[in-house]
Amino acid sequence: MAGFHQWLDRRAIFDLSLYLVLDPQMCGGLDKMVETVKEAVANGVTFVQLRSEAEIDKGLWYKAAVVLKPILKAHNIPFVINDHVDVALAVDADGVHIGQKDLPATVVRKLLGEEKIIGLSVGSVEELKAVNFTVVDYVGVGPVFATTTKKDARPALGLDGLKAIVKAHACKKVAIGGINASNAESVMSTGVDGIAVVSAICGQEDVADATTLLSTIVTAEQE
Amino acid sequence: MAGFHQWLDRRAIFDLSLYLVLDPQMCGGLDKMVETVKEAVANGVTFVQLRSEAEIDKGLWYKAAVVLKPILKAHNIPFVINDHVDVALAVDADGVHIGQKDLPATVVRKLLGEEKIIGLSVGSVEELKAVNFTVVDYVGVGPVFATTTKKDARPALGLDGLKAIVKAHACKKVAIGGINASNAESVMSTGVDGIAVVSAICGQEDVADATTLLSTIVTAEQE
Repeated sequence: MAGFHQWLDRRAIFDLSLYLVLDPQMCGGLDKMVETVKEAVANGVTFVQLRSEAEIDKGLWYKAAVVLKPILKAHNIPFVINDHVDVALAVDADGVHIGQKDLPATVVRKLLGEEKIIGLSVGSVEELKAVNFTVVDYVGVGPVFATTTKKDARPALGLDGLKAIVKAHACKKVAIGGINASNAESVMSTGVDGIAVVSAICGQEDVADATTLLSTIVTAEQE
Repeated sequence: MAGFHQWLDRRAIFDLSLYLVLDPQMCGGLDKMVETVKEAVANGVTFVQLRSEAEIDKGLWYKAAVVLKPILKAHNIPFVINDHVDVALAVDADGVHIGQKDLPATVVRKLLGEEKIIGLSVGSVEELKAVNFTVVDYVGVGPVFATTTKKDARPALGLDGLKAIVKAHACKKVAIGGINASNAESVMSTGVDGIAVVSAICGQEDVADATTLLSTIVTAEQE
């Protein structure tokens, strides 16, 4: 049963508190993405998702994932890939984050096996109630606020909308959408397990400072 | 050794002569795509690739692949997916067709296993000479003529450019790019194993007639 407990632990115990959605283009290219992620994980980021809002070739996805994998493994930070299960499999990432319009979660679970993390985006209580939590390990809830970094984002939930979703199910949740240092405290106070940020870290002039500030806020709210 | 010969056969023996690149949007949606493929395989198409030039959600790729798989299996027609290895794995398709900017062929082979077909697009003698034919089973050579159905297509090779590539290596080759009933004979005469068409079948008013005409041409040239 050792193997069973091992994957159960990996999928059950991960820290969503400061979740970085890493966009290579927003970082200013692959080299700057590597600099960004190194400073981010050294200063409090607890979870990393590779995502590209720009349509990029799968070869580029693969290159980005290949360089990120050893950095995040060395820091024991979970590393998931947005949408592309094949890229996750190719680099043996820790999992995949999918949206409502991607491959169905049950299909992704079959492809990834039992040991990997699957996250799913939800934008309403109805979507949350429809989640199959035997295959999905956490949900991303949003957009909380209006966002410019995701082109197909739906209307913002606001803090009240977020609270309603948080109350609806006791699963692991990370909030996403327009979150930054000025609103992180109020987002955390809704009861989510963490905040996911894109532009609040990617493309910031001082990534270390920006990450440290966010980390201080979420850590204070967790206590 | 039965298993060995079985996959060797599947990867070595397939008919590229009339290769349909099936684009759901060009067919007019999923329902019309199903009508198109049924008429196409009933009238001489020998190989089918699912491809979408429009950026569509992976959930839609999956839906399209799920409906195509049993139709093509029933006709014993090889069915490959463009780019998305995860979609191919999800529906147990017969393989994947990749371009120069997609996941590397060696990575795709690891993900798909030894039994599936891998095709790779090449546009020059140099690219053809760089192909690893222990993992790649055929190449798509093009664009032969100017094409409007692939947005990132490179300059047309012309018949002479195609001939030069055909002579460079004795692998299986299908020509692609602007091929239709009016030029199919001259393309086949360069020595390729087949022609790949998109708009010459997808979106045609009479798919059965269009396919029959193309099939007659390639069959005559093969004899």
